[in-house]
Amino acid sequence: MLSQKDNEALTRVGPGTPMGELMRRYWIPAAFSHQVETPDCPPVRVKLMGEHLVAFRDTAGRVGLIDERCPHRTASMFYGRNEEGGLRCVYHGLKFDVDGRCVDIPCVPQMAETQLRNLQSQMKIKSYPCVERGDVVWAYMGPAELKPDFPDLEWTRVPAAQRFVTRHVQECNWLQGVEGGFDATHLSFLHGGDAEHSRRVVATLYEVMPTDFGFIVGTGRDMGTGTINWNVNVMLMPFHKIISSAVHAAHVWAPIDDENTMLYSVNFHPSRALTDKDLERETSWRGIHTENVPGTDHAIRNRANDYLIDRALQSSGQSYTGMKGLGTQDCAIQESMGPIAERGAEHLLASDAAIVKIRRLLLQTLKDHAAGKPLPGMRAESYRVRSTRCELPKGAPFAEMLGNLVRADAQVAAE
Amino acid sequence: MLSQKDNEALTRVGPGTPMGELMRRYWIPAAFSHQVETPDCPPVRVKLMGEHLVAFRDTAGRVGLIDERCPHRTASMFYGRNEEGGLRCVYHGLKFDVDGRCVDIPCVPQMAETQLRNLQSQMKIKSYPCVERGDVVWAYMGPAELKPDFPDLEWTRVPAAQRFVTRHVQECNWLQGVEGGFDATHLSFLHGGDAEHSRRVVATLYEVMPTDFGFIVGTGRDMGTGTINWNVNVMLMPFHKIISSAVHAAHVWAPIDDENTMLYSVNFHPSRALTDKDLERETSWRGIHTENVPGTDHAIRNRANDYLIDRALQSSGQSYTGMKGLGTQDCAIQESMGPIAERGAEHLLASDAAIVKIRRLLLQTLKDHAAGKPLPGMRAESYRVRSTRCELPKGAPFAEMLGNLVRADAQVAAE
Amino acid sequence: MLSQKDNEALTRVGPGTPMGELMRRYWIPAAFSHQVETPDCPPVRVKLMGEHLVAFRDTAGRVGLIDERCPHRTASMFYGRNEEGGLRCVYHGLKFDVDGRCVDIPCVPQMAETQLRNLQSQMKIKSYPCVERGDVVWAYMGPAELKPDFPDLEWTRVPAAQRFVTRHVQECNWLQGVEGGFDATHLSFLHGGDAEHSRRVVATLYEVMPTDFGFIVGTGRDMGTGTINWNVNVMLMPFHKIISSAVHAAHVWAPIDDENTMLYSVNFHPSRALTDKDLERETSWRGIHTENVPGTDHAIRNRANDYLIDRALQSSGQSYTGMKGLGTQDCAIQESMGPIAERGAEHLLASDAAIVKIRRLLLQTLKDHAAGKPLPGMRAESYRVRSTRCELPKGAPFAEMLGNLVRADAQVAAE
Repeated sequence: MLSQKDNEALTRVGPGTPMGELMRRYWIPAAFSHQVETPDCPPVRVKLMGEHLVAFRDTAGRVGLIDERCPHRTASMFYGRNEEGGLRCVYHGLKFDVDGRCVDIPCVPQMAETQLRNLQSQMKIKSYPCVERGDVVWAYMGPAELKPDFPDLEWTRVPAAQRFVTRHVQECNWLQGVEGGFDATHLSFLHGGDAEHSRRVVATLYEVMPTDFGFIVGTGRDMGTGTINWNVNVMLMPFHKIISSAVHAAHVWAPIDDENTMLYSVNFHPSRALTDKDLERETSWRGIHTENVPGTDHAIRNRANDYLIDRALQSSGQSYTGMKGLGTQDCAIQESMGPIAERGAEHLLASDAAIVKIRRLLLQTLKDHAAGKPLPGMRAESYRVRSTRCELPKGAPFAEMLGNLVRADAQVAAE
Repeated sequence: MLSQKDNEALTRVGPGTPMGELMRRYWIPAAFSHQVETPDCPPVRVKLMGEHLVAFRDTAGRVGLIDERCPHRTASMFYGRNEEGGLRCVYHGLKFDVDGRCVDIPCVPQMAETQLRNLQSQMKIKSYPCVERGDVVWAYMGPAELKPDFPDLEWTRVPAAQRFVTRHVQECNWLQGVEGGFDATHLSFLHGGDAEHSRRVVATLYEVMPTDFGFIVGTGRDMGTGTINWNVNVMLMPFHKIISSAVHAAHVWAPIDDENTMLYSVNFHPSRALTDKDLERETSWRGIHTENVPGTDHAIRNRANDYLIDRALQSSGQSYTGMKGLGTQDCAIQESMGPIAERGAEHLLASDAAIVKIRRLLLQTLKDHAAGKPLPGMRAESYRVRSTRCELPKGAPFAEMLGNLVRADAQVAAE
Repeated sequence: MLSQKDNEALTRVGPGTPMGELMRRYWIPAAFSHQVETPDCPPVRVKLMGEHLVAFRDTAGRVGLIDERCPHRTASMFYGRNEEGGLRCVYHGLKFDVDGRCVDIPCVPQMAETQLRNLQSQMKIKSYPCVERGDVVWAYMGPAELKPDFPDLEWTRVPAAQRFVTRHVQECNWLQGVEGGFDATHLSFLHGGDAEHSRRVVATLYEVMPTDFGFIVGTGRDMGTGTINWNVNVMLMPFHKIISSAVHAAHVWAPIDDENTMLYSVNFHPSRALTDKDLERETSWRGIHTENVPGTDHAIRNRANDYLIDRALQSSGQSYTGMKGLGTQDCAIQESMGPIAERGAEHLLASDAAIVKIRRLLLQTLKDHAAGKPLPGMRAESYRVRSTRCELPKGAPFAEMLGNLVRADAQVAAE
């Protein structure tokens, strides 16, 4: 059970909030590159971390992410004209470049060049630096002097043909998503079909270790033969998960605001292009992707239609939920906890040990950040990790061995 | 005119409110039995008294009404799997029976039987006892030690073939419904068609008498011949009305929350099955039922479409309202006062004497309840009453005579 | 930049607010006359200045505008029956005339005539005096003893054939509309198509002069030949604009509530009927009118569909906005500033001089009103003005000359 104060600290992400300021120290996915596909194409609205923004691609191909509100008279830049090196507000013609600099103020009476430059320098629009990696536009919304290098996320480093990315809106706070992502216990229930089987395979050991990239979540099952079967998942600060699966996979839970999250879902292969068969399998009901209402980021199976739950399928025993799709099942349960889960109402079990430790680690990181201590994940190379499974002898030096393990493969792929 | 404080006290029904706690001392209709028709059928959402709940029928046929929120991690039990003696949360597999007992926690590592029993005993879900009477599931949401016997409501005691029940949502507070139900004055206006006629038949005497079941509302017309024509209606605590009509009828105004009410409308015959002709008449525009959007509890003629008011019909003089259906007319007027009527803005007339007295009685009952005094309606037999009409000599001992009268017929039928 | 306090003072219009009370000293458009076309026709809902009202036309043809809420039991008068000299509440039959007098209380027991009269005199419904001018119903919502004569607005004084009026809802505060109406700078940007041309024609002189009707806004361009080209617009208190155009035009921004405005748009000719050609031109994309969803006051091109912006048209350079219609362009930009623009977030330029002066004048008028000083626009004749364009020698006595000018033509037409 978490205090209301700690729950607020962990979940709120607006400007000035503890978690909001912590997250702003990292690169955050803002849009797909293809949403601003060509130079001078129409701008798009982006809501991110509770802020209303507009993304556009300038004549030189650079992507800008600026305040939706023109600093002059507060009109929306979304209706702006994207032209020759900047986005022009259509109310009085002020123009801003991708760095937020005002590059034209055509509505003032003719004035001396130096006077005009001076005036323009006072008329900056809020803007965030962007990079494009892995078909996605990423923004850095923190203090300029603390901007880290873009992290070596493996899925953003492989060629486009080796990657498949979708996204959809979850109507709940980001932490419900991340907690669900690292809750190993639910796998055999929510995504399973047989309670008796599930009962037999639940883990008995839960380890969460802080690392230089975030943390490692290990859930272990004692095989009774002197060895432990470990399921090892990596959480890369502040909201990434790398998933160990047939082809590799990843999730990013990027806060839209306190009560909505953009979940990016990724498949990738480190060394070859994804095949039609890969995509067919991964976008089927066994994959993590959701099918969206065309032209939107909203899942067809959503809260308003109870995720098209099939009660006959559910009672048949073939599916715990009667819902089709791993992504849909996660989304349904996480959204059902409300816009921001009331963690004060929980009654946690031994099987929630990982969740408890993750919350403690995040709270500790908030304290460290407030105290000016160094943060995990500031070195790009630290992100060269993968989730994995392994069998270790009981009593083996867990921390060291797993730490090495999650880095092993990814080191190679990253060369 | 009522003070804002008294208006709040009378209307708010959430947990911990004075009226909310008073109502929770009585049985409250939660759902139709047919909504959870068969053992292990899908659960249904129920919002009642401001609480989010889930109703289900277990393998043995018993109906449960439990918190929508799983006590473990706050996921919704609505998506739960109804199986073998309980409803199982699909997130981590916890299972609860109709009494709220946790009967399975499959997600924890294997532990000793006593340890597991102990763990389960700590993991109770909020649950309310239910009974099924008159095709309806009723819940008791008050203190266990104060649970009364189910009241001898006549319409719940006749065989199913002698009863017809519908329900629909009113988008306003429950008290607007109850006040409308006992406002004799509006009958000849709202439901009438001729102002001059209405003017001649208005009552001149208003009596409201507390009884052991609630109160009797008598409206009398002096016939000028030494006798009074009394229209006598019974209000059974906390929100029942028995209606005197061709076949007998009844209403129950069950609060969904402070601003929405589920109105149950009943026709019944004490001694014979209802005929097709009965049902045809009662579901026509002269009856109290409303026609709903199929598959919902929402009336086709509703606030969003101005109840399909027919202005030509209204101006023709054949109908005061131009709205078809007594139920629709009541609903339109009661909802038009707002989600919770601002009774401080009223200017009451002599013809509102009954309304004033009802409010005073309810306020007094709130005080009595707070003071731990006995409440009306706690004895099941006290509900054996009917509304009636009668002619009494002027100056007759009104209270005693009417008290006997409303009990007379129903006593017989209840045998 | 405006303080939050001043922004609140200028924008809020509910009962008891400074601007609300100031506006209530003037006649305010409430509905089209054709909405209550014939005697005893159905009443219509009117939301005005944050108040919920009902308009109806009585048997004698007089228009009434009364509280939506019956003073007896707070039921909605919208469902009322409009009959023989008044609107009758359908709940208990109380009837009110256009002056708010209660003319019938049929639900009380028969009583002596004087007693009944007395009772009726206590049961007044809030009502506002109305007049019909220019196909529009206007209400006076201020203190009875301060009611001014209806102003000599030219467009309301010409025969119906010489006038064309439409209206639509703007989803923002009234002041965003008025400020947009007197912002000369935006004309060549928002409504223009060529930044370079716009840059060359921006004004360099901004004058705002208080007058006995409101104020004159003059924007001047120095022609470099010893003369100034003046564009002269009149603001008639509290929210009128007269527009100089091919046929004459006018706007009225009437507050529905703090966050919604009914914009009336008018074309008129002082001396001849409008022709089909006039109407065709004025309702085309170059005019100020918007095309509405049939049967509503809502524009087809609206915020929910991004005003059907055509990005290809926008990037073609033929249109700054890619939006069709002057009215649509204004509406889009004004609504994009939010329900009530945060003027504290602005960074004003020299070209905003008129806007700054208008705000100061309005704030000064609020102070004058609070201090009991006389208000502009109280004399009907003071409204006999028109906007205009002219060329004046540099250094000419601007105030006097323009003051005369705006009155010149209109004086003649008003005879």
